[in-house]
Amino acid sequence: MSAQDQVKMTAMNYGKNRPKAENPVKIEDLTLRDGHQSLFATRGRTEDMIPVAEMMDEIGFWAMETWGGATFDTMHRFLNEDPWERIRTLKRYIKKTPFSMLLRAQNLVGYRNYADDVAKAFVERAAANGMDIFRTFDALNDYRNFETVVPVIKSSGKHFQGCICYSLTEPRLGGDVYNLQYYVNKAIELEKMGADSICIKDMAGLIAPYDAYAIVKALKKSVKVPIHLHSHFTSGMSSMAHLKAIEAGVDIVDTCMSPYAFRTSHPAIEPLVMTLLGTNRDTGFDIRALAKINEILEKEICPKYRHLLDDTKMSIIDINVLLHQTPGGMLSNLVNQLREMNALDKIDQVYAELPKVRKDLGQIPLVTPTSQIVGIQTVNNVLFDDENERYKMITAQVKDLCYGLYGKTAVPINPELQKKALKGYPRGETPITCRPAEVIEPELEKAKAETAGLAADLDDVLIYALYPVTGKRFLQWKYGKEPVPAEVKPITLDQVKAREDLIKKALAGKLVEKSDKPTVTKGDNLRKFNVFVDDEFFSVEVEEIGGTPLIRSVQPAAAPSRTAAAPAAAAPSKPAESKADAATAKPAAAPAEQPVDGTALSAPMPGMIVRYEKNVGDAVSKGETVVVLEAMKMENALPAPLDGVIKAINYKSGDSVPKGAALAVIG
Amino acid sequence: MSAQDQVKMTAMNYGKNRPKAENPVKIEDLTLRDGHQSLFATRGRTEDMIPVAEMMDEIGFWAMETWGGATFDTMHRFLNEDPWERIRTLKRYIKKTPFSMLLRAQNLVGYRNYADDVAKAFVERAAANGMDIFRTFDALNDYRNFETVVPVIKSSGKHFQGCICYSLTEPRLGGDVYNLQYYVNKAIELEKMGADSICIKDMAGLIAPYDAYAIVKALKKSVKVPIHLHSHFTSGMSSMAHLKAIEAGVDIVDTCMSPYAFRTSHPAIEPLVMTLLGTNRDTGFDIRALAKINEILEKEICPKYRHLLDDTKMSIIDINVLLHQTPGGMLSNLVNQLREMNALDKIDQVYAELPKVRKDLGQIPLVTPTSQIVGIQTVNNVLFDDENERYKMITAQVKDLCYGLYGKTAVPINPELQKKALKGYPRGETPITCRPAEVIEPELEKAKAETAGLAADLDDVLIYALYPVTGKRFLQWKYGKEPVPAEVKPITLDQVKAREDLIKKALAGKLVEKSDKPTVTKGDNLRKFNVFVDDEFFSVEVEEIGGTPLIRSVQPAAAPSRTAAAPAAAAPSKPAESKADAATAKPAAAPAEQPVDGTALSAPMPGMIVRYEKNVGDAVSKGETVVVLEAMKMENALPAPLDGVIKAINYKSGDSVPKGAALAVIG
Repeated sequence: MSAQDQVKMTAMNYGKNRPKAENPVKIEDLTLRDGHQSLFATRGRTEDMIPVAEMMDEIGFWAMETWGGATFDTMHRFLNEDPWERIRTLKRYIKKTPFSMLLRAQNLVGYRNYADDVAKAFVERAAANGMDIFRTFDALNDYRNFETVVPVIKSSGKHFQGCICYSLTEPRLGGDVYNLQYYVNKAIELEKMGADSICIKDMAGLIAPYDAYAIVKALKKSVKVPIHLHSHFTSGMSSMAHLKAIEAGVDIVDTCMSPYAFRTSHPAIEPLVMTLLGTNRDTGFDIRALAKINEILEKEICPKYRHLLDDTKMSIIDINVLLHQTPGGMLSNLVNQLREMNALDKIDQVYAELPKVRKDLGQIPLVTPTSQIVGIQTVNNVLFDDENERYKMITAQVKDLCYGLYGKTAVPINPELQKKALKGYPRGETPITCRPAEVIEPELEKAKAETAGLAADLDDVLIYALYPVTGKRFLQWKYGKEPVPAEVKPITLDQVKAREDLIKKALAGKLVEKSDKPTVTKGDNLRKFNVFVDDEFFSVEVEEIGGTPLIRSVQPAAAPSRTAAAPAAAAPSKPAESKADAATAKPAAAPAEQPVDGTALSAPMPGMIVRYEKNVGDAVSKGETVVVLEAMKMENALPAPLDGVIKAINYKSGDSVPKGAALAVIG
Repeated sequence: MSAQDQVKMTAMNYGKNRPKAENPVKIEDLTLRDGHQSLFATRGRTEDMIPVAEMMDEIGFWAMETWGGATFDTMHRFLNEDPWERIRTLKRYIKKTPFSMLLRAQNLVGYRNYADDVAKAFVERAAANGMDIFRTFDALNDYRNFETVVPVIKSSGKHFQGCICYSLTEPRLGGDVYNLQYYVNKAIELEKMGADSICIKDMAGLIAPYDAYAIVKALKKSVKVPIHLHSHFTSGMSSMAHLKAIEAGVDIVDTCMSPYAFRTSHPAIEPLVMTLLGTNRDTGFDIRALAKINEILEKEICPKYRHLLDDTKMSIIDINVLLHQTPGGMLSNLVNQLREMNALDKIDQVYAELPKVRKDLGQIPLVTPTSQIVGIQTVNNVLFDDENERYKMITAQVKDLCYGLYGKTAVPINPELQKKALKGYPRGETPITCRPAEVIEPELEKAKAETAGLAADLDDVLIYALYPVTGKRFLQWKYGKEPVPAEVKPITLDQVKAREDLIKKALAGKLVEKSDKPTVTKGDNLRKFNVFVDDEFFSVEVEEIGGTPLIRSVQPAAAPSRTAAAPAAAAPSKPAESKADAATAKPAAAPAEQPVDGTALSAPMPGMIVRYEKNVGDAVSKGETVVVLEAMKMENALPAPLDGVIKAINYKSGDSVPKGAALAVIG
């Protein structure tokens, strides 16, 4: 059967009333979750989804992704929005199309494995709030991490979509690990677990079109449930991968409305609708209805988010993905880390080291959080290893991975590395082989106790259970116990317009620099002149400083009418922000230097303080953890640089700190 | 044979030394012509091609497009570059890869049919300067317009690539006109003319993947010469169209380096290389070598052009193309025209009228210049027609088209319209049926005579013959007879950096508006000083305000030495630029209002004066052409709005004028 036969042409017209195709490809729209997560740092607000919600409900999508992934984190942390409320609000506008969410299995919508009681409660509440389809993945494709959430999805009567994270070790599908059989085996495993559909989750845009064809063909032969392809555009291959997957019989593909498509997001829906128009896989969608939605998105919504778009490069694709089989975001993180360490010249060593570290760590797929784990360890090796010793500085996350806390790796971890990593590991030196969550103590009751008097219901408790620091801060905003800082408030189209006007004026040369001069009080001897310099007029006031005033103005002193200004002698300095202010979301300014003798423990990167593990006065040994800093979604335990006593602690939980901030002083 | 069999997998590795594919797809790179023409208004400079030229020569492209299209126009008009010199310069760096150019058949690299003697000389000189492949197209697919240039291409021993402009009347391939048979017939016609290869030229990104498959399959069966696909990304379908065309056996496809790809440009090469890696159509290219070129383009070249990129929309595709089967650029022109007429509310009427006008005009393909011809006439109909009369205002270009000056249309022109258009047409009321250039008088000797003493060689003469106004201006710059204006000089990376810094400062709130000072009258107490600050001279005049003037100048009144200043009451006004200044390339400022009684003939759009057809003192009747204005590459004959006498003429040939400029006054 030729490609032409597989996708047969029939009658062609635009209208929604054209004859239904034999086997229409189903479409999940990602605009309202992965679209803005990929392009706009997940900053999309519910109020900016409502204007298109009802129109999108009419298109005929198989599902709309509206929640999960980074939305839960971003909403409560940066947008002052209750994540649970989004589901309920959108459900009022989108009544026909099922909702889909991205669930990180036992990681839920966070970055670590949560306890079973929290996981169960979370899924129950998501279902009760209106979620229909739970797209569930585990970074290691270790489906034991599905064992807690899946029965809850099923018992809630919801759709369990099981994901296979797409990964490669070679330039294309194949090799010893991620070969065709790997994907077939995973699909069979998922079907046995009761998956209602199976998703090939290509988060890095790695899947090449003919590999997509081969996998879909093989999966369609091996399992009965619908096959779904999720492939980011990052490398520029995913439109083609869609087409080949459709020819191979894929049931569902993921797209975005065109303003939210391409770049690191997903292929656009409109070209696909036209491509399939009149074939046996015609979507049946009305392009004109899509065009109307786009107009609203372009005119009313996108301008508010455009400044969040990464436009450092002209290219809309990242061909490094093709060179290194590694997500684009991970590579830019590596580059940023090296830049912060002034070691950008080592980038080629990092690219060479990366596959070695990944191999040592069991050839795990590279997706949040494993891409960060592999990436940071790679940078550590390049910066700190020498000819005598490999893995000189092993991160806490690599230790956890070696212990088995993330699950089972694709191939066994290098035993030498595992042994070294687990030396003195607090939970024990022998790795576990059980399901990771089995070693995690229940967390829900503790979370309830800690939010007593603040949390109004279980939804509130779960926000805290998942994100103790920022979750608590959000609940305080929500219940008016702390003022909502300006940074988390939405911007308006007027503000966008003002910003654009400012840029236009600057480029037109209509703006001049503010002077950095100290404010000086006008004195009694001030004289006023009209001055024309090369015929340009200036109003000049002059007062001689020091010496006998040779000439005195007869004008009466006008001091009272002037606004109060700082004394001339005071050097300009930024006011130190109070700790109380710093606790709200905005980055804290460096506290005024304290005259404490000792060595500073500096923040190696910008981040947020999770907690201090030491107090002022505590003795610490070199290497002992003093403070835990969250950066790039990873918790970093920062060790004491020397033996000593904690002399000062300069921040507190929840503070955002810049790179280089003296977090503590040890003397 | 399945799609998988058509594109067979073999061994896979990155290196250039991997086994050669059975039938590698050949690639023409468009970065250095259509890439920057599509994204950066053709403003790419030769100096910005040299840094990557030798590296690109190593990739193994079948050809590199380096010239033609809009380059000839833009280079001499906006860049002060000799177009001929670009071919010779790039040839010094690119020694292995053949050069390709886009030739608009009898239109050469301009926007009208030139005389045969000019056409012959142009092709001879292009070949002599180093052009290898002449991609030749005619907007009407009327190959009689190839009859002059093709024999010169062939006798010069060069490659004649014949194009079929891709056009649709239905949402997809089919219908009465542009059906499969149409393309097959055209291909056979081209092969008979001696085409060395045949290009499907999809300038609007209209070709849907399965239509590309069908056409390529049919063409491969019908002709022996290689088939080439050129498909802009505009609608978002072209990567997929490439893939299906490759499966159908297309020989050559067009791509750009990724920073110059996508949007209204072409698919990127890198994802295609990976897609075909290890198949029987593997390009054989080394992705790592492409990555190195991209790095230079991103860091050193693109920043200089980025400001030219249209970023008014978030979407990188234009789905209007899918809705209206019409090039994206044409649709934005329509919107702009309506906006200038304050008639944007009529856009839906324009979309409805467009297919009617196109049908009346013989269902011509929509490409430069036919897209403008159809577009402008459509807007005229919507704005001026009423229930009693259709085609109330017929443009000069539609009259020419009706006369046959562009060639033969796909189907006959509506005879009623044709009759109306040709009423009183200067060349005659009966349309021609011959090859259009047969009615054009020779032009070369006249051009030689008119450039005597200025043109040094035939290349110079041809610049003038193709573009009399801007060509002559360029030759004057070239030979130092006129100063080169700042606007045509290149910008540097330092200037780009300064621009970015300015924007950053503005957004950081570090800039304040220049004060709009009141005009102040110089009083009697003004004292004058010569002031030298670090040796820079300032003329400073000082007058103390308020109180009794304690000190009076002993200087005698210096009024005569002051430059005349506007009295305080006069509003500040921009100085009127002299006509002599305005004649150089920069946009002319509006001349000072002249107290001439009468009615102004205003410029309906921004443009460049081609020529005045009337002089001051001439009597004119309403509707008679007064001045010819070039805008959007079209010459617009502007008619007198009433009977009268020309009282004033405010510009001259070559002047750029803003919309609304009073070009002439009729009283």
